[in-house]
Amino acid sequence: MEKFEINILGCGSALPTTRHFPTSQVVNIREKLYMIDCGEGAQLQLRRSKLKFSRLNHIFISHLHGDHCFGLPGLISTFGMLNRTAQLHIHAHADLEPLLSAQLGYFCQHLPYTVCFHAIDPTHETIIYEDRSITVQSIPLRHRIPCCGFLFSEKPRPNHLLREMIDFYQIPVHELNKIKEGADYVTADGQTIPNRRLTRPAEPPRRYAYCSDTIFKKDIADQIHGADLLFHEATFAESDLPRAKETFHSTARQAAQIAQMAEVKQLVIGHFSARYDDESTLLEEASEIFPKCRLAKENLCIAI
Amino acid sequence: MEKFEINILGCGSALPTTRHFPTSQVVNIREKLYMIDCGEGAQLQLRRSKLKFSRLNHIFISHLHGDHCFGLPGLISTFGMLNRTAQLHIHAHADLEPLLSAQLGYFCQHLPYTVCFHAIDPTHETIIYEDRSITVQSIPLRHRIPCCGFLFSEKPRPNHLLREMIDFYQIPVHELNKIKEGADYVTADGQTIPNRRLTRPAEPPRRYAYCSDTIFKKDIADQIHGADLLFHEATFAESDLPRAKETFHSTARQAAQIAQMAEVKQLVIGHFSARYDDESTLLEEASEIFPKCRLAKENLCIAI
Repeated sequence: MEKFEINILGCGSALPTTRHFPTSQVVNIREKLYMIDCGEGAQLQLRRSKLKFSRLNHIFISHLHGDHCFGLPGLISTFGMLNRTAQLHIHAHADLEPLLSAQLGYFCQHLPYTVCFHAIDPTHETIIYEDRSITVQSIPLRHRIPCCGFLFSEKPRPNHLLREMIDFYQIPVHELNKIKEGADYVTADGQTIPNRRLTRPAEPPRRYAYCSDTIFKKDIADQIHGADLLFHEATFAESDLPRAKETFHSTARQAAQIAQMAEVKQLVIGHFSARYDDESTLLEEASEIFPKCRLAKENLCIAI
Repeated sequence: MEKFEINILGCGSALPTTRHFPTSQVVNIREKLYMIDCGEGAQLQLRRSKLKFSRLNHIFISHLHGDHCFGLPGLISTFGMLNRTAQLHIHAHADLEPLLSAQLGYFCQHLPYTVCFHAIDPTHETIIYEDRSITVQSIPLRHRIPCCGFLFSEKPRPNHLLREMIDFYQIPVHELNKIKEGADYVTADGQTIPNRRLTRPAEPPRRYAYCSDTIFKKDIADQIHGADLLFHEATFAESDLPRAKETFHSTARQAAQIAQMAEVKQLVIGHFSARYDDESTLLEEASEIFPKCRLAKENLCIAI
């Protein structure tokens, strides 16, 4: 199975603690890296992760609260010092561009590469990025300011050719792509070989859903239904439900309810409030509803 | 002896490593905290230091390279979330104000306290801060952009009264302040008691000099002569002297030469280039010239 991994760089929330960095993750799909959110210290954690800086070309920012984007100037500046030349694409709310541009204009005057901004509309499910192997779709969330999550979906892949059957029927090379895509093969003497005798199915495409920050929002479940992994914020324990509502955050139990409704395969919770010295209560509360749940932590890598 | 401590929050240079945070320090003088530089992650390290956020009212920024100031927005934002009400004073090159104000205007719209900017002229030795017990003077440095260090000096303190002598001569309370300041005492019958019989001298005022970032600059030594502690940048080893000159940084050996010329009591070196996995070479090179030398490291606290 080809690589599809989530690397947690930080899973704290706004206030600093000695246990957590603010929010940042890197999705590694076949050694192409996609960063989600870039809280302060993301570049330090990226260095710690041993992921290659040069493999990162896209950064997706869920919303413009500082704990999700204050790491950008440092990261961009460091990429410059490392003589990066490839474009870096930042997908974020439109308000970020003038703010960050002003900073880069002063602190990173001679960047050897270009930073390209792409404005996200967080209010609708939209494909905001696409390449040969994946799509990234926005997941509209509900927070104190415009905010969206991200659904990373592998594209369906062509079937695998059964080499011994291709050889047996002496199928010419120019036919192979069609067969990978599902075509039958007709031999020189008119015999039709059904596709299923020539191929085995590709692995089913995998999906990762990232949902932070948001108040409990049921309709997320439809969009992410059946995802292989869901990261959902779980800022608060159930005892702090009023505070969760007030600040447009979720409890661990609510994160688990979304996972249950969406019938995802696994749940990982994070964005923990600084008030909890020990997050085991959050894990217990979530696991009661959705047992295949784990706590995010710094430097955790989850393979899908 | 009253508290005068230097807390190293970060002593790396521009590129992130797994060993160091970028530059930040906190000077703790009698539980009043003064931050010097505020690289990315300074607030995380401040939390780790267990120093009280509320005791910090002044931040001094040596120069406007990102690794010395990218931690400001996060720190300022966090102070707001902690419901700080006291003013926070930032002493920095004038260019910082519009840049930081734009960021705070967006990310910290309802700060419950005021951030006050104070422009530093880094080209002259100037008293940039003063209170009852200390002065902070700028130390002009020479770097790629305008830059200065900071000399923290305790003010001379009044002598200590010898309680038993005060009682013996039955000196009235309203005379005591004058005696602390050095006056003799004349008794009711005209006898003059010399001050040295009534007091013992206060501890000599202490001084801490912070010099980063700078190319080797001899005349620093005059201004900081005899300081109790010198922090001097030592970005490079002697083998990288050409690179030090090119980038307007110092070698460990040059830092030690400044310490030697200035006849300071102790030297601590930092701002290490990411290229050194092991800084013991830097320590050796500095110690050959100036033996009372140590390496800075994160979470190190040095009492003066």
